[in-house]
Amino acid sequence: MGVLELPSFKRVRGMRDFLPEEAIMMRYIEGQTRKIAHLYGYGEIITPVLESYELLAAKAGEEIRVRMYAFKDLGGRKVALRPEFTASVARLIATTLRNEPKPLRMFSVGSLYRYDEPQQGRFREFWQSNYELMGSSRPEADAEIVMLTNDLMKTAGLKNHVFKVGHVGVLRGILNREKVEDQVQNEIMQLMDKKEYENALRVVEKAEASRECLSTLRKLVKYKGNKSSEILNKMEKSVDGYEAAVDAVRNLHEILTLVSESEKSIDITVEAGFARGLEYYTGMVFEVYVPGMNIALGGGGRYDRLIEMFGGESMPAVGVAHGLDRIMLAKQKQKTALKMEKEKTVVVIPITEDLKGEALRISRVLRDAEIPVELEVMGRKVAKALEDADRRKLGYAIIVGERELKERAVVVKNLRKREQKTVKIENLTEAIKDKLWQ
Amino acid sequence: MGVLELPSFKRVRGMRDFLPEEAIMMRYIEGQTRKIAHLYGYGEIITPVLESYELLAAKAGEEIRVRMYAFKDLGGRKVALRPEFTASVARLIATTLRNEPKPLRMFSVGSLYRYDEPQQGRFREFWQSNYELMGSSRPEADAEIVMLTNDLMKTAGLKNHVFKVGHVGVLRGILNREKVEDQVQNEIMQLMDKKEYENALRVVEKAEASRECLSTLRKLVKYKGNKSSEILNKMEKSVDGYEAAVDAVRNLHEILTLVSESEKSIDITVEAGFARGLEYYTGMVFEVYVPGMNIALGGGGRYDRLIEMFGGESMPAVGVAHGLDRIMLAKQKQKTALKMEKEKTVVVIPITEDLKGEALRISRVLRDAEIPVELEVMGRKVAKALEDADRRKLGYAIIVGERELKERAVVVKNLRKREQKTVKIENLTEAIKDKLWQ
Repeated sequence: MGVLELPSFKRVRGMRDFLPEEAIMMRYIEGQTRKIAHLYGYGEIITPVLESYELLAAKAGEEIRVRMYAFKDLGGRKVALRPEFTASVARLIATTLRNEPKPLRMFSVGSLYRYDEPQQGRFREFWQSNYELMGSSRPEADAEIVMLTNDLMKTAGLKNHVFKVGHVGVLRGILNREKVEDQVQNEIMQLMDKKEYENALRVVEKAEASRECLSTLRKLVKYKGNKSSEILNKMEKSVDGYEAAVDAVRNLHEILTLVSESEKSIDITVEAGFARGLEYYTGMVFEVYVPGMNIALGGGGRYDRLIEMFGGESMPAVGVAHGLDRIMLAKQKQKTALKMEKEKTVVVIPITEDLKGEALRISRVLRDAEIPVELEVMGRKVAKALEDADRRKLGYAIIVGERELKERAVVVKNLRKREQKTVKIENLTEAIKDKLWQ
Repeated sequence: MGVLELPSFKRVRGMRDFLPEEAIMMRYIEGQTRKIAHLYGYGEIITPVLESYELLAAKAGEEIRVRMYAFKDLGGRKVALRPEFTASVARLIATTLRNEPKPLRMFSVGSLYRYDEPQQGRFREFWQSNYELMGSSRPEADAEIVMLTNDLMKTAGLKNHVFKVGHVGVLRGILNREKVEDQVQNEIMQLMDKKEYENALRVVEKAEASRECLSTLRKLVKYKGNKSSEILNKMEKSVDGYEAAVDAVRNLHEILTLVSESEKSIDITVEAGFARGLEYYTGMVFEVYVPGMNIALGGGGRYDRLIEMFGGESMPAVGVAHGLDRIMLAKQKQKTALKMEKEKTVVVIPITEDLKGEALRISRVLRDAEIPVELEVMGRKVAKALEDADRRKLGYAIIVGERELKERAVVVKNLRKREQKTVKIENLTEAIKDKLWQ
């Protein structure tokens, strides 16, 4: 048994490796998240993986807090690996960027860490893109966050994605007027989020809410469907009398009207009982799914009290995070995954030892023309090297031999078409790039 | 005092934030490292930030080992944040990729962690690109690693970079024949690396090496210069009799001949006493610098015993790592840093509330044409919004007003030229993209 088979030399449980085929897709998706940020004016910020435990714990709910990778560094500081981006963004907003004029649009992408039970497609190191729009309380800001998510799904190449949308202000508006305590409200919202409506209503009952409240909630949680206006009108009627709840429904209506005005084909299901688990949401909430996958590819909403929670000034904020691993999984399921492109790669093979320098010079010329080259570095015979290039599905082989070099030429093989030509070195890049010969 | 001014809410010491201006440059450099990987046929792999402590400690020298961010995870596993990439690559080679045919070319890029004393340009979270070429013991493999580093420096936009090159086989060849123990050799190499030649020679003396050996070493460490062939000939003469050392000099000579044959303008200084600190190097070693900066922007060499160290099969290997933060610092010093490009960004401003939907639709059209748009989401008056766009150096403003809309048109302002035109919506993307008007 080699040392590497000892448990300590294995990959840590819950972590994953991306081999080239997967890494290409992950980087492609990352590139698309960056492109969307660019098109919507979100400036990228790169914050550290390691933050102070207190900062991260201040925002994370209990569920995330107990699953953080927390430890003391060599200087005795209590630190943790970030379980999400928003705490780091809030730290910047309340310190370095405190005096920046609003709105502030910020984008981050990278790896996050949670000690969850590993499952298929779920790892303890996972990747997210995160967009935050700070400083605007207006519905067009909410609409923008939904729209950019829609654009990301499209540009990532996903098909048939659907949005689930709600507004925590509706339920909170009712519970507030009933004077249900914040902590009890959080409990109710969490049960709602898990669709345990009966349990949620039992908690409401125990909190001594009115009969009217109970019957309103009972009715409300049933409203769900993709005819937004119809559902929203029903919701508005049913919460009649709860002023804040009515405002919340109208706010959601306005947001969704803006979205559908600019994006006719978007598929949105409004769900009155949809709450998202996290406590800090204050307004519209949403998630995006693809058919056949039970986990959200992204989710977000409005959290106007977030910066306050961190001791900063009160500031309206709306944001969204997308799971890059999940988008990748969805692409694999939908069979829109990228293939590795090796058919443009050229292998350069010197026939004899003393032609290595020439082979390097030719590689140089090709790379200067942006053509990828794998130099034969194993000293193999031409036949062996060609066999290997075939196995690896490379596109071309250039064979550097004494005889052709006398004419300043080399033999170029198109490995797909199994054709070959003798080409002058000065015409080499053109010959390789020549579409007619591909 | 806000909560955020409490020490626990600050950024952790030694960590850094990249704001958009810096993030753009960092991602640009990262993109260049990926481009070079592509052009040289190195497949990207993404390995976890978190690895088992034992794995990372097995390769790291004592100096790095004691500065790792190590801790126990919630499952009681001893883990650490990776201080470099090579251990993760070695893990893959000896497990998942065990049966892959050679050569294997692998590329990684990302953040690494060491608890060093923070200094200007030196952080505890830092970024590297890493290239490994496994399976070839031939000089063309060594040459490739040097050449790709040279290409990266050029494509990153750096000027006047110089290489420092040596070969640990020369010194080791001498010390081995003198039967100096491995551990003592490591001590000597480390002193050599710090240019403490006198101290190094004292250790050699204490190890009971011959007089001949001492005088050879004394002569050898003085050989240094950028006329490679001349220096190498002197070196070869001076180690005459130490067979392994002679082979090492010849190996270095062959590598450098290959490099200079394909890259005429490369600036290389050969240093006979150059050793690099790390114990696992077995052959050619090199570093790359720019004038005025004392720290290497990249370094690497041959380490044929690495995979063995991890209990895998013996495998020749050569590799290099580049410091992305350092390349960024060098670009700033050389004033080739990138500027943020906001002059192509358009701000879309609805004159009245009820034109928000129209503004969103226009934004949609522009973004579909890959034009970046920042929608006015603060509900400000046109003059205020324009003032803000000016301050942020945006390129264009589109003002969506009732009157122009009747003709399906909007007002487009070129904020640089302070000109404006009324443009039909159907011609909008053309008007913005029109170079004549930029």
